[in-house]
Amino acid sequence: MDAGGPRLRRLGRLMPKLNTLTATEAARRFAAGTATARAIVEDCLAEVERREAAVMAFAHLDADGARAAADALDRRGGAPPLAGAVFGIKDIIDTADMPTGYGSPIHAGHRPAADAAIVALSRRAGGIALGKTVTTEFANVHPGPTRHPMDPARTPGGSSSGSAAAVAAMMLPLALGTQTTSSTIRPASFCGVVGFVPGMGVITCSGVRQAAGSLDRVGLFARSVADIALYHDVLRGEAPGPAPESEAFAPAIGYCGRHLAERMEAATPGLLDGLAARLAARGARVADVAVLPEFGALAEAHRAISSYEFVRNFAHEIDRHWDRISTTLRQGRIADGQACTEARYREALQLATSARGRLDALFGPHDVLMAAAAAGEAPLGTATGDFAFCAAWTVLGLPALSLPLLTGPAGLPIGVQLLARPGQEARLLAAAAWIMRHGA
Amino acid sequence: MDAGGPRLRRLGRLMPKLNTLTATEAARRFAAGTATARAIVEDCLAEVERREAAVMAFAHLDADGARAAADALDRRGGAPPLAGAVFGIKDIIDTADMPTGYGSPIHAGHRPAADAAIVALSRRAGGIALGKTVTTEFANVHPGPTRHPMDPARTPGGSSSGSAAAVAAMMLPLALGTQTTSSTIRPASFCGVVGFVPGMGVITCSGVRQAAGSLDRVGLFARSVADIALYHDVLRGEAPGPAPESEAFAPAIGYCGRHLAERMEAATPGLLDGLAARLAARGARVADVAVLPEFGALAEAHRAISSYEFVRNFAHEIDRHWDRISTTLRQGRIADGQACTEARYREALQLATSARGRLDALFGPHDVLMAAAAAGEAPLGTATGDFAFCAAWTVLGLPALSLPLLTGPAGLPIGVQLLARPGQEARLLAAAAWIMRHGA
Repeated sequence: MDAGGPRLRRLGRLMPKLNTLTATEAARRFAAGTATARAIVEDCLAEVERREAAVMAFAHLDADGARAAADALDRRGGAPPLAGAVFGIKDIIDTADMPTGYGSPIHAGHRPAADAAIVALSRRAGGIALGKTVTTEFANVHPGPTRHPMDPARTPGGSSSGSAAAVAAMMLPLALGTQTTSSTIRPASFCGVVGFVPGMGVITCSGVRQAAGSLDRVGLFARSVADIALYHDVLRGEAPGPAPESEAFAPAIGYCGRHLAERMEAATPGLLDGLAARLAARGARVADVAVLPEFGALAEAHRAISSYEFVRNFAHEIDRHWDRISTTLRQGRIADGQACTEARYREALQLATSARGRLDALFGPHDVLMAAAAAGEAPLGTATGDFAFCAAWTVLGLPALSLPLLTGPAGLPIGVQLLARPGQEARLLAAAAWIMRHGA
Repeated sequence: MDAGGPRLRRLGRLMPKLNTLTATEAARRFAAGTATARAIVEDCLAEVERREAAVMAFAHLDADGARAAADALDRRGGAPPLAGAVFGIKDIIDTADMPTGYGSPIHAGHRPAADAAIVALSRRAGGIALGKTVTTEFANVHPGPTRHPMDPARTPGGSSSGSAAAVAAMMLPLALGTQTTSSTIRPASFCGVVGFVPGMGVITCSGVRQAAGSLDRVGLFARSVADIALYHDVLRGEAPGPAPESEAFAPAIGYCGRHLAERMEAATPGLLDGLAARLAARGARVADVAVLPEFGALAEAHRAISSYEFVRNFAHEIDRHWDRISTTLRQGRIADGQACTEARYREALQLATSARGRLDALFGPHDVLMAAAAAGEAPLGTATGDFAFCAAWTVLGLPALSLPLLTGPAGLPIGVQLLARPGQEARLLAAAAWIMRHGA
């Protein structure tokens, strides 16, 4: 594209590029006629062009498809809630017009029959799919090529590696992920974006390759809490509600800062404590809360449930394509699952059910709980990091959010995890809006 | 194939054909060396050849694939639990080597990336896939071509129409189905076979096209309770347990014969009462049980949950292929789902949860509950019949079984529905073995 003469290009450099807009801002500008969807897509594509060689966030980029969708939207006009919002789709999620490889060479180039429900709902709302983002192998732990956007020597976290990295790298404002253990909260924490997992069953997983149906949830990535709330409405097939900022309130925070402190990096407890103090000083009620005594057993239950279900759900790949499954996966999740008896699996499910009945004891009078999202900054290397900070929360199926509020000793982001009771997504997002504003 | 001279052919007519064997018997004969898998497949194929033009049970028949699988099994030998057991796969379930059309022209010819977990687990156990069986459109109510095996003027029931009909027509001993409302219990009742739906979450739905994730379950069809128990073990990825016949016991039966009596055909209440009296005379403890007062509201909750989730899960088809969706589906489930608010949906889920907490009040001291499986015999015409007899039970997520124990005024089978508490599948099957033996 001809971007105009030298004067226009200089002017362009002074204007914020459209890829830096949040989805909320993009939709507002589209509706106001001050930005076309096509212009937004072009700025996103330019950023991909600039960064992708280092970040490697995409398993498949569909520039032509995105341009065509943008042009159609520009012709149609109106004010759909995600108009002009460019989004990425973790490659564990089916798309009818883009290959879906599930992060495995076994399925490279596969073309599903239909878009997953969450993809179709995104498109219905005016969202523009830019491509498939890198997932670890079958959304488990064997990493894909994606690197941390701020330091290519580090992991972006996983399994929703490409989604977190693409949002952080300003390639697009929204991305879809999943979480069976820590696959949204951890990469959001490492990459410095907002990651959100609604409660179990709230957003449909139809068309998402199942890892462990008892635990799998859709995850969302964005750069603002408002975008998360907007996208959460769209993915439930609902009309957008009021922005969480407009309902923000100083929450009663149960602070679980000592949970798994022994697994944190040295600086993390102090950073979390500092945030808790800051929020208290600005008007939140903050009180120390101990997690349930069964949290250790819940983490073990997570391992039993996820592994037992995984080896059944991937029976086809295990039987027909064993030689193309990574050693990491064979010796990890698959070995675990094959060793787990049905009695142990049922016991783990039973523990999960009984712990879900004890949320009153866990939450007490608090609106949200606040805990570590990860051990610290994104680690060096390719391994996707310690998943322990999500395991027990995940078994409880609680709505969870990672907010990019901390900075570690290497200057990299660290998220803080907020959790709410089932069904309290709107309250969690409103509390998060307040915490984002007052915790920085 | 040359079946031998006239004498051998006469002899053949005196021997039971191998397609009439149950899966349990087929596996036993395979292990004993008295039947090859290939010979069993050939007899199944011959029966398909003989009956399929009238029954139309198959969406896709894979004779070559079945022969190849049988030959491979014959070469390998051993005693896998489903050796030589030929099975059919409802076409809402993914298969890597057969097209999967989900009962819709939209997806005709689609080839999934992988076998659904339940297909892969069946094959791992020595089962031989013969083909894809007809499903109603997206496992909803718009019927496929399948006709009742005993009367082509009648429906086989749905949505697992082809699976029930193929088992009843002796084309194969086992078939996979699904149930979101009554899609296994009702066709099993109409066709006179055993239909089984384990409790929610017991068998993985990975690779099964989702209708309503909060309700969807895998369903099994067979001609004996022993086969159901064997297949249930295989589909959980477990080694087969003892045959239910060996653990059969005279159960305490809570008899819900008056539930929805106003919707039954004239002869049905008397037939059910007669069965209850017969079982009591032969040693079962039978007592009248009233269903929970909220059963009417649960049936309404079923409609809200299934419709709300359906329109989200099929967002792709609704947005991209509206003109190839049947009027039945558009004006039924889809219109319902579009009219259902999120508040109503959440209220329905809440009712389901609270009713699941009241199973003690429902079951009392009884091992199983006994109720109608359908209004009566398979109706004339193509509509798949009244689903009401399963709706509330389905919302409760209870393990359910239909046993072919009754015969209606037209000489056609009517099933009786047995229900057990969650987790009590083995006990349900043992009780069913006793009831089959003493209820005939």
